[in-house]
Amino acid sequence: MENFVFHNPTKIIFGRNTEEKVGEETARFSRKILFHYGQGSIKRIGLYDRVVESLKKAGVEFIELGGVQPNPRLKLVEKGIEICRKEKIDFILAVGGGSAIDSAKAIAVGVPYEGHVWDFFERRAQPEKALPVGVVLTIPAAGSESSASAVITNEAGPYKRGIYSLLIRPKFAIMNPEVTFSLSPYQTACGIADMMAHVMERYFTPTKNVELTDRLCEATLKTIINNAPVVIKEPDNYDARAEIMWASTIAHNDLLSTGRIGDWATHAIEHELSALYDIPHGAGLAILFPYWMLYVYKKDVERFAQFASRVWNVEVNFRDLESTVLEGIERLKSFFKSIGLPTTLKEANIPDDRLEEMAEKATWAGPIGNFVKLEKEDVLRIYQMARG
Amino acid sequence: MENFVFHNPTKIIFGRNTEEKVGEETARFSRKILFHYGQGSIKRIGLYDRVVESLKKAGVEFIELGGVQPNPRLKLVEKGIEICRKEKIDFILAVGGGSAIDSAKAIAVGVPYEGHVWDFFERRAQPEKALPVGVVLTIPAAGSESSASAVITNEAGPYKRGIYSLLIRPKFAIMNPEVTFSLSPYQTACGIADMMAHVMERYFTPTKNVELTDRLCEATLKTIINNAPVVIKEPDNYDARAEIMWASTIAHNDLLSTGRIGDWATHAIEHELSALYDIPHGAGLAILFPYWMLYVYKKDVERFAQFASRVWNVEVNFRDLESTVLEGIERLKSFFKSIGLPTTLKEANIPDDRLEEMAEKATWAGPIGNFVKLEKEDVLRIYQMARG
Repeated sequence: MENFVFHNPTKIIFGRNTEEKVGEETARFSRKILFHYGQGSIKRIGLYDRVVESLKKAGVEFIELGGVQPNPRLKLVEKGIEICRKEKIDFILAVGGGSAIDSAKAIAVGVPYEGHVWDFFERRAQPEKALPVGVVLTIPAAGSESSASAVITNEAGPYKRGIYSLLIRPKFAIMNPEVTFSLSPYQTACGIADMMAHVMERYFTPTKNVELTDRLCEATLKTIINNAPVVIKEPDNYDARAEIMWASTIAHNDLLSTGRIGDWATHAIEHELSALYDIPHGAGLAILFPYWMLYVYKKDVERFAQFASRVWNVEVNFRDLESTVLEGIERLKSFFKSIGLPTTLKEANIPDDRLEEMAEKATWAGPIGNFVKLEKEDVLRIYQMARG
Repeated sequence: MENFVFHNPTKIIFGRNTEEKVGEETARFSRKILFHYGQGSIKRIGLYDRVVESLKKAGVEFIELGGVQPNPRLKLVEKGIEICRKEKIDFILAVGGGSAIDSAKAIAVGVPYEGHVWDFFERRAQPEKALPVGVVLTIPAAGSESSASAVITNEAGPYKRGIYSLLIRPKFAIMNPEVTFSLSPYQTACGIADMMAHVMERYFTPTKNVELTDRLCEATLKTIINNAPVVIKEPDNYDARAEIMWASTIAHNDLLSTGRIGDWATHAIEHELSALYDIPHGAGLAILFPYWMLYVYKKDVERFAQFASRVWNVEVNFRDLESTVLEGIERLKSFFKSIGLPTTLKEANIPDDRLEEMAEKATWAGPIGNFVKLEKEDVLRIYQMARG
């Protein structure tokens, strides 16, 4: 086990009707806020009205900035920073999924910074201050509601880049599973792939002797796998939606990486896909993760056999562990397929004429991944395997 | 799943040599502190010197109050409160196990309170303020390093009573597994029973549809069970000590009870044992938990069968689930025996002439337990079953 610091002070407020608490929770921090959201789905499901009512009741003034797109854009972040500075706003409330939250986090570090916010994403500077952020979560997927990371797309490249800073962990996250009833099966499935990827990035580690976190990862994955078909088939099943929603937070609140080094190559490889073709991050991860596994499993066959056995209930073939590994990877792929996700680039209508460019960009800062270090050529090979 | 709020802001600093950070972490809060510890074991293992050096380096002045006993006493808490008030101290550093930490927490709520601190333990008042507490942990057991609870023994009864308040979660907990190498096999085993009990109190719930937390509980228990014989046999095995130490915190930081109601009857039943006979809390729990299980399992045979199957690898007898349940309980008991713990009152040299008095005291505030409500007669029956 590696030495670690674990500090996650996000206050989670979970369950039915919890959005009614947003005014009270926000008022602890500020009386004048930026209310940041996406493309209007919160209005269709009535959440917008309930949030506004709660804010007004608590005497919290707000300025609205909607319009966050999936794969949130730098342009809107710049606009948010401008509004906050002009209006002397000192708190940002994100109501939405990972995109709205990540956009809010980027605004939060941008406001008190004298340079351009993109500096942080290009690693030219580290955030030293941030406005506090609060969250009402609508999509269980990114785990951004209690994570220390944010990913933004700069239209100029396009470049999709992330930052990690403890300063941007939200102060509170309000999570009502009922709010997720209206997610389409495809949105739901993309979220499921995203949260599973967060666990798997942590699971495939070069660190030895990490039994507790291995088992916590397996527990989280099994819960997601068991509840996924239920939420796809019965979108308003509260209990299954609740399991999935809480699992999405646990998957990415850093508990599962305590004492171990994560891999994170597949995230970097996927970011190039969604930057260029604007597909959902979860769909890209569903395509790529099994091929990443096929490319790297020989590095630690025992760990992959454990994954197959404990997560996918594959009967272990002790005379041929690799067959156990391959069956585990196959079950992961079949699972993604069964919940309606693409498993090749072709199925997602992604052409194969820019694979080299993507491989180049994915490794812009050097080799990626910690389980196995991948150079540009390795990444290209994985894209090629995923062509279909 | 029940609605819940989960908020655990304790900063965990885990790994080799982390005690060197105590000065720096403490200085964020205060320059004049109470340095609270037990009966000198921290001096024998050199930890005292390393803590003092770090505090001095960070410019933190301290007043010492040692002498905390296992089952920490109200008398010393009163003394600590007096010192803090007189010396205008605004931070308490506990270096030790659950007893030192609980004693520190009681002092922390007592200092700013005008009445007597025991009011909180008698439920005559709720803490509204508390001094911040920091921890250097030496015994993985009680989980007090990031919990919101504290248990104190009032010699006058003797009464052993607990409080729960979010105000007393420590600000930071420094956890170096090397510090636990010097624990005796018996101390180690008592700690193991204590942390397992924390998980089991949460596991046996009346709440339905709690798959994620069920599985996280099982993951934690399996890790403890697998590493227990290793730390008993090889006290300086870093990796196994680290698993046990991190598991003890996870067992009691409230993550495992998110969305579910815990039972907690066995804790109340045990407190009377250790109040009267001053045995380690963990030893008392090891004796009582299997008998509590035998007394209540019919309330939810499926849950107990799941426990037997998933935690103890009992092969399920689908035509006779009760036999599966009983085998699971038997394996728990054998496990406690195998690590050197008593499994009956007789083995712990506890006479059976005051069982009625203990049953009376355990139910002083009404029936106990949420999985099954236990009246005085039920508690008495459990004590009688445990006689041996």
